[in-house]
Amino acid sequence: MERQDRDLAWMLQYENIAWYEGDVVRILDRRIYPIEIKKVVCRTHQEVAGAIREMVTQSAGPYVAAAMGMALAAHECRGRTEEDQIEFLTNAADVISHARPTTSKRMENVTDACLVAAKEALAAGKADVSEVIRDLAIEQNNTRYYRIGKTGKYLADLFPQNGAVMTQCFAETILGMMLREARKQGKDVRFFCPETRPYFQGSRLTASVIHDMGFDVTVITDNMPAFVMKKEGIDLFTSAADVICGDGHVTNKVGTYQIAIAAKYHDIPYYVTGSPDLGHPTIDTVRIEMRDPSFVLQAMGTPTANQEVKGYYPAFDITPPELVTGVVTDQGIFSPFKLDEYDADAGAFLV
Amino acid sequence: MERQDRDLAWMLQYENIAWYEGDVVRILDRRIYPIEIKKVVCRTHQEVAGAIREMVTQSAGPYVAAAMGMALAAHECRGRTEEDQIEFLTNAADVISHARPTTSKRMENVTDACLVAAKEALAAGKADVSEVIRDLAIEQNNTRYYRIGKTGKYLADLFPQNGAVMTQCFAETILGMMLREARKQGKDVRFFCPETRPYFQGSRLTASVIHDMGFDVTVITDNMPAFVMKKEGIDLFTSAADVICGDGHVTNKVGTYQIAIAAKYHDIPYYVTGSPDLGHPTIDTVRIEMRDPSFVLQAMGTPTANQEVKGYYPAFDITPPELVTGVVTDQGIFSPFKLDEYDADAGAFLV
Repeated sequence: MERQDRDLAWMLQYENIAWYEGDVVRILDRRIYPIEIKKVVCRTHQEVAGAIREMVTQSAGPYVAAAMGMALAAHECRGRTEEDQIEFLTNAADVISHARPTTSKRMENVTDACLVAAKEALAAGKADVSEVIRDLAIEQNNTRYYRIGKTGKYLADLFPQNGAVMTQCFAETILGMMLREARKQGKDVRFFCPETRPYFQGSRLTASVIHDMGFDVTVITDNMPAFVMKKEGIDLFTSAADVICGDGHVTNKVGTYQIAIAAKYHDIPYYVTGSPDLGHPTIDTVRIEMRDPSFVLQAMGTPTANQEVKGYYPAFDITPPELVTGVVTDQGIFSPFKLDEYDADAGAFLV
Repeated sequence: MERQDRDLAWMLQYENIAWYEGDVVRILDRRIYPIEIKKVVCRTHQEVAGAIREMVTQSAGPYVAAAMGMALAAHECRGRTEEDQIEFLTNAADVISHARPTTSKRMENVTDACLVAAKEALAAGKADVSEVIRDLAIEQNNTRYYRIGKTGKYLADLFPQNGAVMTQCFAETILGMMLREARKQGKDVRFFCPETRPYFQGSRLTASVIHDMGFDVTVITDNMPAFVMKKEGIDLFTSAADVICGDGHVTNKVGTYQIAIAAKYHDIPYYVTGSPDLGHPTIDTVRIEMRDPSFVLQAMGTPTANQEVKGYYPAFDITPPELVTGVVTDQGIFSPFKLDEYDADAGAFLV
């Protein structure tokens, strides 16, 4: 706690989701939060990668978990020769960054930075670089908070007074930042949150955070966004993104594409938050992760179908730039067709 | 069974959902089928109305249940004076037909027909008209089977060989008829069924029926239709309807509107099955039923959100005619803009 920006301490109950503590990494299990508050304890960096793969944490969570996992890896190989440690950490970076395919390029940014810091510290004679990596993880997080705070302000600026905003999935830090900014601006905003099957991140996480921050929030099922746009009046649809390609294609939790189509049909703007991903100049390099299909044949652990039928579970979908009104970044709002105007050197999020 | 068309006996396992048996009406509980097979026993016509309200049965089920409920009402007042029985049955018709608001005009068609038959039988000196009403319920059902069989043929004619079809919710009789017809035509068709939150009729009922009838079926969550249209190729989207207004507006399970928008965006035709509802020349008289909002804060009985947040639960939505490619009826396929060409006297479904 004392290492964090105190002004951002309120975020930690949602954000301090992965933490390296000496010989373990504890990760808040978002698959069940807030129905149950439980932490998954990882004793090796492989277990951290497994937890990321099993979606114990999502959104920005995996990036924090990845850095903390690198700290744990450093702890695992502490005291070995410099060469051995570098080899061990290089392998660990590979295991952790490839835990999930769609976001692995971004994950590499995190694990590569950890590797660089580790190598420098080892070269300077440190025998255990785990604390160095943990400090870097915290620093990465503080930079992230600062930049996402600016993004949150640009997004909240778009909310009309007494407006209605639709979200998708759990946008994590930007969600908190946007709410804090809306409150600072004295804006009364109602939120509608599609529940986001099959994991219910929208109903479990997003709605809880919005409620806890004192805003009016309504959970709807994933088949209701178009109806709500028509009947309840929605001023703006917003989501975060797992990947924003240089060509303006947005990869985000499955369902985003469908809501963006409905928004277009109702002339409602769709603003995505994040920054262009240098690893993906175009959508061609993005691989959509297909998850265990049987997971869509249950809800909260109860079967919802004859278990002999097939399921189908793409984790993400792709929204083309023609459906994106603007990309809200820490440098302001950009057209999805002009993302080359974003100064990547000055401010691309590390995570 | 012996009263039913034997050729249609295969439908009864899905269809024989409400049955008057002497002093009770038993209704298959579709809220839990096929995970559990349980019948709700109604001992009064008020309990039948309650079961319809509580969605023990859906789609065509409530109409069958309504007629069987009228038979039970006749049993309840058997032996009283003709005048007393007519008063009792008139009240029962009112209670049953208004169990759910959106479909009450159609329900009145059923209960009114039961009343007419009862009055005739009472005038002819019968003291207990319950069997007369039950026979009428069976006859209504057989007429329905005949007409929906023709509708099923017109719909299956539209399926391309090796095509992919998306459904919505549980279309009941027309689903079975369309599958039977597709098989008769030797068509291999793959089906994609959105699960239809919050009741999961798509995953529980539709997918089971399609699977049992030997077709390839995949369950998807309600946020996936647009992605599946884009990535898997869908040739046709089809749904039944709770109300098809004379002006071409379609009222059906919430989500239909959103899928129809996505279909339009992908140039995929949307065919709705049913017949124009004479009770609703325009959409202006349709009232969308709002159900218990807390129901969207759970899935299969398990909480999915902080129970202090708000839910929102419109049972239906409205799809405008511009999104409807054609209305498939027992008289052929009509433009939603030319439903006056449908010969209502010749063939409107009673239910």
